Amino acid sequence: MDGDESRLTESETIALIREMAAEPHPGLEIPIGDDAALVRFARDEALVTVDSVFEGVHFALGTYHQSDIGYKATAAAVSDIAAMGGQPVYALLSLGFPAAPLRREVSSLLEGVLEVLGNFHCALAGGDVCRTAAGLALTVTVLGTPPPGGAITRGGAAAGDVIGVTGTLGDAAAGLYMLSGSGGGLRARFPRLVEAHLRPSPRVHAGEILASVGVSAMTDVSDGLSTDLGHLCDESGTGCELSEASVPVSADLRELADAESLDALSLAMSGGEDYELLFTAAADVYSEAASSLAEAGVPCASLGTMRPPDEGRIVLSADGTRKTLEGVGYDHFR
Amino acid sequence: MDGDESRLTESETIALIREMAAEPHPGLEIPIGDDAALVRFARDEALVTVDSVFEGVHFALGTYHQSDIGYKATAAAVSDIAAMGGQPVYALLSLGFPAAPLRREVSSLLEGVLEVLGNFHCALAGGDVCRTAAGLALTVTVLGTPPPGGAITRGGAAAGDVIGVTGTLGDAAAGLYMLSGSGGGLRARFPRLVEAHLRPSPRVHAGEILASVGVSAMTDVSDGLSTDLGHLCDESGTGCELSEASVPVSADLRELADAESLDALSLAMSGGEDYELLFTAAADVYSEAASSLAEAGVPCASLGTMRPPDEGRIVLSADGTRKTLEGVGYDHFR
Repeated sequence: MDGDESRLTESETIALIREMAAEPHPGLEIPIGDDAALVRFARDEALVTVDSVFEGVHFALGTYHQSDIGYKATAAAVSDIAAMGGQPVYALLSLGFPAAPLRREVSSLLEGVLEVLGNFHCALAGGDVCRTAAGLALTVTVLGTPPPGGAITRGGAAAGDVIGVTGTLGDAAAGLYMLSGSGGGLRARFPRLVEAHLRPSPRVHAGEILASVGVSAMTDVSDGLSTDLGHLCDESGTGCELSEASVPVSADLRELADAESLDALSLAMSGGEDYELLFTAAADVYSEAASSLAEAGVPCASLGTMRPPDEGRIVLSADGTRKTLEGVGYDHFR
Repeated sequence: MDGDESRLTESETIALIREMAAEPHPGLEIPIGDDAALVRFARDEALVTVDSVFEGVHFALGTYHQSDIGYKATAAAVSDIAAMGGQPVYALLSLGFPAAPLRREVSSLLEGVLEVLGNFHCALAGGDVCRTAAGLALTVTVLGTPPPGGAITRGGAAAGDVIGVTGTLGDAAAGLYMLSGSGGGLRARFPRLVEAHLRPSPRVHAGEILASVGVSAMTDVSDGLSTDLGHLCDESGTGCELSEASVPVSADLRELADAESLDALSLAMSGGEDYELLFTAAADVYSEAASSLAEAGVPCASLGTMRPPDEGRIVLSADGTRKTLEGVGYDHFR
């Protein structure tokens, strides 16, 4: 029963996960193997988030390696903690398999999960294993500590604040375009775009920097810039004015878009899954944020400003026309 | 779009959940609606557990009402906290629907979830909504506080400790037997057995009592007595001797078993999902536990004793024969 191709029972699956996650962690007082985990935090408060992904909706097993699925599901949940300015500390993993899994499937999934957690000294503290009627299902819960000055919510933006974003947008959507079978032959030419989709790096350190300089609001770009900026406006009770010309797009994405007649800006505005940080800050705080991020090697761009609510949500096109910002990002049921 | 029969988008689903879960909770500093929730605990440590259920595996939608599904998934996770002697404080809910859900489906699921949480003054702090390729999926994460004297693990039992269990066993399995279409017409005669399956009451108060008197090990009966007692032996490094005649079986279960030629003891030993507490304690502590539980109106039975590991895991039959305890409870992949 030790071969990679052997099928595991539920208890063998749990035993394998427990073995792979056995690295000790100072605050993990009761690890995997009991009814619940007992975890210790630096203070009496914690950030907590949960993210689920399902085969056939979030990924296809032909296209994704199991380790990519484990990696990405975990990265998405860790990114939620980064978006509050927090540090991820513990994770729990609920795994659903449609049939008894192969040993190598479980170990590969776990490798992806543990790669992300290892990058942030985050421990796998527990979870659940069960059967699904169809398809692989992963739910990742991440617990973290808020930044010393308090977590950064979506609701703190004020009219006049600069809108900033880390990195570049649209790369993950471009990677998905190539993985989905379109753009044949281009995958080898643009490995960074495929990587942006399969192996996004949660911006934990950037989130820590942004919280420490005192940005007013923050979220991660998971649904797409349009939708995620809409969330900041919703929760802060503001309008906004976004300049399309300022949206940061990578050279790779521009080159792919030219080759394939794609609209790079549209991928950047509504592609989602970039896991960059979108934030707002008073002008002087924005300057400090930009220079602190630059010191840490994280690019940052200013996209526009938050506006009073009665001015609406405006997108300035490169040709000077004004459109209304529409939340055209992904909605699972639309 | 306000009718019960209207289909919701993802953002409408989240808005409905947010509205239903809006009751304020003193420690819930950042509630549903941000990238992560921020929760405050009484101390710098927390218990955390996660449980997933899937349509077609854990329930069939023809047989279960949505509110039962929400109730039971939440009760199972709360029971894990009870099994450590802890108090549940916050929950997160990840919901997967195969298509845009009806408003009444979402509100009914949430009613079941919030009924359990309300019973324990536990707040719904966050979650995730997405689409599945097939079938309804629920993952419930519960965070809690450990008991003042420390959480009770599965690993603290010693040879000589009495094995105790709250309530009666096998009722949930009998309820499932009737719900699964067997035993037609009996459902109205044994409503308590159906209720035991659909609406189990997590033993939070009993767990608190058992932790306070200092039981040595504890778990909940979720996989079945045989398997769950096996877990206590595994983690404590002990053997055990269990008397079949001492396994507590309800009068309803005996009556149903007689009527349907079922083996009541077998349902009690391996049925699972009873969510009673199985614990071990030194003899004097067991006496104190039993009388404290009785004062709280919780029945309790002594099933046998933990033994040195070299004596094995023994079941004494009513006729005096000795068998080996087999973990014959539910394994998802067997």
